[in-house]
Amino acid sequence: MRKVAIIGAAQSKWGVLTERTLHDLIAEVGNGAIRNAGISRGAIQAIYLGNVAGGELSQQFTLGSVAAHTLGIPNIPAQRYEAACSTGAVSFREAYLAVANSVYDFALAIGVEKLNVNDMDRTVEVLSRGFDSGEGRVGLLAPSQYALYATAHMHKYGTTREQLAMVAEKNYYHGSLNPDAHIRKRYSVEDVLHAPMISDPLGRHDCSLVTDGAAAVILCPLEMAQAYHARPIEVLASAVAGETSTSASRESYVSFGCTRRAVEAAYQQAKLGPGDISFAETHDCFTITEIINIEDLGFVPKGEGGPAVQDGLTRLGGRLPVNVSGGLKAKGHAVGATGIGQIYEAVIQLRHEAGERQVSNAEVALTHMLGGSPAISTVHIFQRGY
Amino acid sequence: MRKVAIIGAAQSKWGVLTERTLHDLIAEVGNGAIRNAGISRGAIQAIYLGNVAGGELSQQFTLGSVAAHTLGIPNIPAQRYEAACSTGAVSFREAYLAVANSVYDFALAIGVEKLNVNDMDRTVEVLSRGFDSGEGRVGLLAPSQYALYATAHMHKYGTTREQLAMVAEKNYYHGSLNPDAHIRKRYSVEDVLHAPMISDPLGRHDCSLVTDGAAAVILCPLEMAQAYHARPIEVLASAVAGETSTSASRESYVSFGCTRRAVEAAYQQAKLGPGDISFAETHDCFTITEIINIEDLGFVPKGEGGPAVQDGLTRLGGRLPVNVSGGLKAKGHAVGATGIGQIYEAVIQLRHEAGERQVSNAEVALTHMLGGSPAISTVHIFQRGY
Repeated sequence: MRKVAIIGAAQSKWGVLTERTLHDLIAEVGNGAIRNAGISRGAIQAIYLGNVAGGELSQQFTLGSVAAHTLGIPNIPAQRYEAACSTGAVSFREAYLAVANSVYDFALAIGVEKLNVNDMDRTVEVLSRGFDSGEGRVGLLAPSQYALYATAHMHKYGTTREQLAMVAEKNYYHGSLNPDAHIRKRYSVEDVLHAPMISDPLGRHDCSLVTDGAAAVILCPLEMAQAYHARPIEVLASAVAGETSTSASRESYVSFGCTRRAVEAAYQQAKLGPGDISFAETHDCFTITEIINIEDLGFVPKGEGGPAVQDGLTRLGGRLPVNVSGGLKAKGHAVGATGIGQIYEAVIQLRHEAGERQVSNAEVALTHMLGGSPAISTVHIFQRGY
Repeated sequence: MRKVAIIGAAQSKWGVLTERTLHDLIAEVGNGAIRNAGISRGAIQAIYLGNVAGGELSQQFTLGSVAAHTLGIPNIPAQRYEAACSTGAVSFREAYLAVANSVYDFALAIGVEKLNVNDMDRTVEVLSRGFDSGEGRVGLLAPSQYALYATAHMHKYGTTREQLAMVAEKNYYHGSLNPDAHIRKRYSVEDVLHAPMISDPLGRHDCSLVTDGAAAVILCPLEMAQAYHARPIEVLASAVAGETSTSASRESYVSFGCTRRAVEAAYQQAKLGPGDISFAETHDCFTITEIINIEDLGFVPKGEGGPAVQDGLTRLGGRLPVNVSGGLKAKGHAVGATGIGQIYEAVIQLRHEAGERQVSNAEVALTHMLGGSPAISTVHIFQRGY
């Protein structure tokens, strides 16, 4: 396998983008990534597109072909992936594998999602289909599933509601520094604690957002990368792992086996360990999820995620900043785009182009997504390739 | 790249399967392919699943993970693909690339679709989203698009309604010999010509079916294949190509550039030409499509598809039988499953296990799918690996 680098990256503003269509967002980030890479569009040999709800909410399937058409390169292979919230990351991984295995030299990975349409009840119902439909019919949807995990974690490790709230406060702070973020307003721990309850112990500010947005990156062999972009970003590892797809059949409510399996494979590929990571973007669909994730990723021992947040480990300026983009909590959760949005953040940070939210000495980045209960997890590791 | 073989294949009955769920169909064909391959389920390292309408008609996304869970192998990577009617073929291609490039040794490709739910108007509306949503809003859906192509082909080459009807009569005949087919009743050319008009010149019998069904195959390196199945089937070529995604922007109404590009690449990979193909399964979404396809695939010169059907070239017993399974017309069109259903047919024929519909001297098979207007085409070529 060849070493692979990212030579171009682009992201739309994330938020409630009432005036934007899927086509429009694809054009913005696809053309943006092409310009950023300094290649001609004709050089791109394949498109890997992640999208969850386009068929349901924008009446458009076959978005791979639509993207190729929209970007003026209709003849190339182009396909769409869906793996619930891991969608974008899975698309990137397939593009990575194709370039690493010399199937293509230049591949475009795009994530795009348009969720804010006329009827939010319908959007929420469509998104619930990412979870087991049988459990959904008895009311065990995302907030109630992750509320069970929060309760179990609090019971077993003494994690507090205040520590959950500190995750939200931190990510709102990070989002306030990100011009692309859906929410740029800061909320205090008190604000979070006094928000309306969604599913006890998770209040409104413990939940991620319903966001429209898109991101795109261009991959090529590392040995060719320097000819195109002065600061290529090397892909050190790409891993995915699964887990049972219902909550009822999970092995644990306080740890996600799919994350542990994926990150173990990723550390092996990269020949690195958690101590080598400068910063991470991780799937904070709920505040408890970020706490469980930083444990499963090996950043802190199991059960110590809450105290780690309280001690500032994961805050910008801390030893291992987590979700400096604002995360799903404040940058937003444009479901099929989020995995590629995380990679955009890794690229911008490793290029030292992140402005106010720049992580100092950013050398190695880890991105991590979950999908479903979770039933799937992806981990990618990147470093400066220059 | 390693040579790849198929060592296991299974297919459900295709038709209106009111009592069957997606989970149920996945279990039947997944477990069937595992048994047919003679491997343990624990040997499978990844699942590539094709499905179009599960989110909308069965309220279930993340079907890759659902399949892994359902088959008792939840920890492995599993993902879903969607590329309109090319969905199943694209899933197979990604599984092929992973095995060919040594990412995995054993991969399972599954196509599954459940379209016959309570409300057929809703199913048709959902399927229409595989086409450009802008053209759909002004009424240019699949039948009216392909009716334009039929009219153009008739005008340019003198293709007749009787020749279109002969495609349907032939595929109904083939389907009558296939115990898994959706429709096993034969219809005469007269029956086809007198059916209610759908979109002139395409009547009801010129259109493919709305089918529930599933198919699955297991891939491994050719050099390992013989240890598992006595009659492994080698994958000689796997190609995909795109084309503009609207009818209005097509380069031609009488030829599909995506097919021509994909088949040219496939013949190059296989070091074969159209004269080497023993039989083919091709995307007969409408009768005109099969006529255009056999021209684009190089089986007959452009414009001579109609006379070729009339002369019996493509009938079981002819020199190059096409859609001996019954095709989308009679075996049925379980959209996301159809591409893998074609490959199931290729495997069964090349193993000489096809019973009444067996192609004599079946040595090399070609399968071909289209997606959208069409905006994407896939071509695979197989031969006996024993």
